[in-house]
Amino acid sequence: MQRIVGKHNVIHEPHRLHVFSCDGYVAKQALPRAVVYPSNTEEVAAVVRWLHQHKVPFLPRGAGTGLSGGAIPLNGEVIISLVKMRKLLSVDFDNLRAVVQPGLVNLTLTKKIMGDGYYYAPDPSSQSACTIGGNLAENAGGSHCLKYGVTTNHIVAAKFVLPDGEVLDVGSPFGDPIGYDVLGLIVGSEGTLGIATEITVRILKKPQAVKTALAMFDRVEDASNTVSAIIGAGIIPAAIEMMDQLAMQAVDKSNYHVGYPTDIEAVLLIEVDGLAAGLEEDAARIVDICAQNHVRMVKIAEDDAERALWWSSRKMAFGAIGRVSPDYIVQDGVIPRTRLTEVLQRIEEISRESGLPIANVFHAGDGNLHPLICYDSRIPGDTEKAIQVGSEVLQVCVDVGGTITGEHGVGIEKIEDMRYQFQDEDLRAQIAIREAFNPLDLCNSGKLIPTPGRCAEIKEAKWTAIARNAHVFERLEEQTAVTAPPQNGSTLRQPGELQDPSGDEC
Amino acid sequence: MQRIVGKHNVIHEPHRLHVFSCDGYVAKQALPRAVVYPSNTEEVAAVVRWLHQHKVPFLPRGAGTGLSGGAIPLNGEVIISLVKMRKLLSVDFDNLRAVVQPGLVNLTLTKKIMGDGYYYAPDPSSQSACTIGGNLAENAGGSHCLKYGVTTNHIVAAKFVLPDGEVLDVGSPFGDPIGYDVLGLIVGSEGTLGIATEITVRILKKPQAVKTALAMFDRVEDASNTVSAIIGAGIIPAAIEMMDQLAMQAVDKSNYHVGYPTDIEAVLLIEVDGLAAGLEEDAARIVDICAQNHVRMVKIAEDDAERALWWSSRKMAFGAIGRVSPDYIVQDGVIPRTRLTEVLQRIEEISRESGLPIANVFHAGDGNLHPLICYDSRIPGDTEKAIQVGSEVLQVCVDVGGTITGEHGVGIEKIEDMRYQFQDEDLRAQIAIREAFNPLDLCNSGKLIPTPGRCAEIKEAKWTAIARNAHVFERLEEQTAVTAPPQNGSTLRQPGELQDPSGDEC
Repeated sequence: MQRIVGKHNVIHEPHRLHVFSCDGYVAKQALPRAVVYPSNTEEVAAVVRWLHQHKVPFLPRGAGTGLSGGAIPLNGEVIISLVKMRKLLSVDFDNLRAVVQPGLVNLTLTKKIMGDGYYYAPDPSSQSACTIGGNLAENAGGSHCLKYGVTTNHIVAAKFVLPDGEVLDVGSPFGDPIGYDVLGLIVGSEGTLGIATEITVRILKKPQAVKTALAMFDRVEDASNTVSAIIGAGIIPAAIEMMDQLAMQAVDKSNYHVGYPTDIEAVLLIEVDGLAAGLEEDAARIVDICAQNHVRMVKIAEDDAERALWWSSRKMAFGAIGRVSPDYIVQDGVIPRTRLTEVLQRIEEISRESGLPIANVFHAGDGNLHPLICYDSRIPGDTEKAIQVGSEVLQVCVDVGGTITGEHGVGIEKIEDMRYQFQDEDLRAQIAIREAFNPLDLCNSGKLIPTPGRCAEIKEAKWTAIARNAHVFERLEEQTAVTAPPQNGSTLRQPGELQDPSGDEC
Repeated sequence: MQRIVGKHNVIHEPHRLHVFSCDGYVAKQALPRAVVYPSNTEEVAAVVRWLHQHKVPFLPRGAGTGLSGGAIPLNGEVIISLVKMRKLLSVDFDNLRAVVQPGLVNLTLTKKIMGDGYYYAPDPSSQSACTIGGNLAENAGGSHCLKYGVTTNHIVAAKFVLPDGEVLDVGSPFGDPIGYDVLGLIVGSEGTLGIATEITVRILKKPQAVKTALAMFDRVEDASNTVSAIIGAGIIPAAIEMMDQLAMQAVDKSNYHVGYPTDIEAVLLIEVDGLAAGLEEDAARIVDICAQNHVRMVKIAEDDAERALWWSSRKMAFGAIGRVSPDYIVQDGVIPRTRLTEVLQRIEEISRESGLPIANVFHAGDGNLHPLICYDSRIPGDTEKAIQVGSEVLQVCVDVGGTITGEHGVGIEKIEDMRYQFQDEDLRAQIAIREAFNPLDLCNSGKLIPTPGRCAEIKEAKWTAIARNAHVFERLEEQTAVTAPPQNGSTLRQPGELQDPSGDEC
C-alpha cells in the first residue's frame, strides 16, 4: 500500500485505527486492518487491484457521516478513504455540469460555484461535512429534494473502479443512460459494487427568489392535510418540513429559539422558489390552504434573517433532541403522503406502549419520516428496546405501502429490515447483481442485502441482531480507550470532522 | 402455449406471422415461430416458464412502434404480445400514482384521467399508439421531457417476470429505491432482462396554464444561442423544439400549413407551463431573449387553436418529410446544448458530402437531435449510404460529449454504434448484468449490447452490418408477398396500428 500511495498515506498503527471503527452509526464497531488515502483514480485502481489479488477485503469511506453503518469494517477491511480526493475538477456553467472528486464536501461544491449564481441541489443535513462520493453511495436526500429530486437525479456520469481494479466510465454527461443504466445501479449501492473516483454532477442556477412560510397547527391531522392539499393544488414547493410538539419544545430550548406556542401539535416549514414573478401568488395560495386547514398562525418570512432562523431551528432539531434525551436513534422511513396522520398516530401508540418518547422531524412533502427515538443507554435493555421500536416503525411504513429508508441507507442497521420489503426472489435478484460486479464479495461485504431464505425467522434474526449489538456495546466499553463511547446525541456527530486526520475540508 | 393462454390467443400460421417480422425499424426482418397473447401476470409467467424449460427463445412486444428494432424476432423468437393486457388497474389521485398493465396505450392513460385534471407526462411522438410497457422497455422520451424527465422518472414500481418465469416486485410506489435500483435497471433494458406485467407510474396534475411561443430565425446559430440563453436565464420551459429550413418547407406543403417564410433557417417552438401567475412574465422574458438573439419574428399563441396548429406542424414533421423524400431514416442522438450550432453545421457538411438531404426536427432544449436522412431505396447503394450517414452523425454526437440515442433505443439498429460510446470493459459490465438476469440469453437475444473485443474493427463491423442489411433487403423482396416492402416514410408508420390483429386500442 505504501509503495502505491506513499508512506504517509497509510495508517496501520492500532491506536490510530480506532477512530475508523464506526461511522455515524455507532451501535456496531470493528477495527480496520489499515486505512489508505489514494490521490487519484489510478491510485485507487492500483490499491484495489492489489487487494483483489491478495483477497483482502476492503471498503470505501467518505466523511464517515453515514447513519446506517455502511463504512464500518465488519470484516477488518482495509478502508480506502477518499477524503484526500476532494478537488473540483471542472465546471461547465453553460451546460450545468461539474466534475468532482468523490471526497469533495457537498456544501463546498456549492460554495465554490455560488459566486457565479449556481449550486448543487441535494442538501442532506450533514451537507457541511458529507462528501459527494458518500452522497452517491447512499443516494442521499435532503430538505429540498421534494422539488429537485435525490442524488440519483443529480449524478450523470462517473469513473468507477470495480472490485477487481478495472476502471469503468459509466453514464454520460449529456443524455439519458444508454444500454443498462449502470450508473443508476451504482448510485445507492452503498459501496458494495466498487468505488466512484470521478463524478459528473448537474449543477443548478440559483432560483431568482425564495418565499418561506411557517405554519403552526393545533392538530397534527390539520398539518398533514395541509401537506396533501398544497401538492394536490399543483404547487410543487422546494420543501415542506414538519416538526411535532416534542421536537419544537427541544428546539426552543436550544440556541435557535423561535418561540413556538407550547400547545401546538405541529409546525410546517414550507418553501417555494423559482422566478420572482408569481412567487407572491404561490405564497398567498399556500397561506389560503393553511387557513382552510385550521392553521392557528401562518406567516411568510420577512427577510433572510427570519428565514435563516426558521431553517436553523429545523436543521438543528436532531441536535436539540440530544439536549433533552441522553441518547436517540434517528429512524428513516417513507410513507405515502396521504397516510401521514394515521402513521404519526401509530408511532405515538408505539411510543406509549414502549415508554420511549419519539419526536418527529421530517420531510413531510415526500412522506420521508424521521422519528427520533429517545432512550437512555445507561438503563439496561433500553438500547435494545429503542432498536426494536425503530424496527416496528419501519414495519408500519412498509404496511402502508412505503419503504424502510428514505435517505439514510440500509448498511448494517437495516439489513434485517430489508425482509419487510423484499421477498426471497427479490433479494436473490439483488445478490445476482452484486455477484456480477463483486463476485468475491471483497468490497464492503455483509452490508445492504441480507441472505435470502430465512423469511420465517425474521423476528428471531432481529432479536439475534439486537443481542449481537448489545454484545458489541459491552465490548466497546472495554475497547474504547481512545474514542468516547457512544452517547449524547451521538448519531448527529460528524465523524469526518472529528476523526479523519486528513479530511481538513470536512 | 394454447393450454396456457387459450386457443385463440396463439398465432402460429405462417401467413399470419409475417406482420410480426419487424417493428418500426424495417431494415431487418425475421419471422417469429409463434405469437402468444397472455392476459395477466400469471399467464406471462407460465408462458415464460414453459419457454425457459424448453429453451425456446422469446421476446416481449408492445405496439411495435419501436424505431430501433427491439421487437424483431432475429432468432425466430416466440413473441409475447402484451397488447391484450391494457387495463388501467387503479388510480390514486391524492398520491399521484396509477397502476397499469403494460399494453395500455400511452395517450389512453392520459385520456382516462384527464377528466379529473391529471395526465401522464412522457409524450413520445407515437403516444397515440405506443404502450406504457414499450415506453418502459425503451425509456421513451418526448417533447415535454425537457421539464418533466423521460420515462425512468415516471415509473416507480413494477411486477417483472424474469426470463426463467420467476416474478419480482421491483421498486416501490413511494420512496426512492432501496438496495440496488433494479427498477432503474429494467427501465430502458429493451426487453432483454424480462417482461414488466404491471407498472406503477407517477401521474401529474395538469398545469393550470400554458404559454407557447413561435420564434423564427434567419440563422440557425441565433436559434441555438436562444435555446442556451433561455435555460441560462433559469427558465425551465416544458419544451423547446427546433425545426430547420428543409423540415419547415416540408411541413408547409402538408395539411399543417403555418406559413413559414422560405428564407428563415430555423424555427423554435417554446412552451412554458405551470401556475398561471407569473407565466405572462415568463413568456415576456422568452420574447426578450429571442429579440436579443436577432429573431426575425416571435409571437405567443393567441388561443388553443393556434397553439394546436403549431404543435401539429411540429409533430407531423416526420410524416411531412415522407412527402418530399421517397424514404428517410430518423436518427436520434444527444449533444450538449451549447454545441448545437457546430453540430448542425457538421451535419450539413455530412449531408453535402454524401449528397443526401438531411432535415432536422428535434428537442433542442435537451440537445436531443433527430436528423432525418432522406434517401431513395430504389437507387442502388442509397440505403447503405443513408445508414452510414446516420452512423457518422452519431460519431459526431459522441465526439462532442453526447450519446448515440436520446429516446429511440439501441435495439439492432445501433448495436454496433455502441462501440463509439463504450470501451470493452464497459460492455463487459453490461453483459454481466444481462447474465445475472438472463443467463441463457433466451430473452430478446442479440439486441442492445454488442460483443466486446472488436473495438479495432468498428468500421469493418459497421460495413458488414450494412452489407447484412442490404442482403436482408434483397431477401425481403422475395419473401414479402404478404407485407409491403419498406418504402415511403416507412419509419413513421405505426405497425401496432396496422399489423396487430388484437391491438384494437392501438
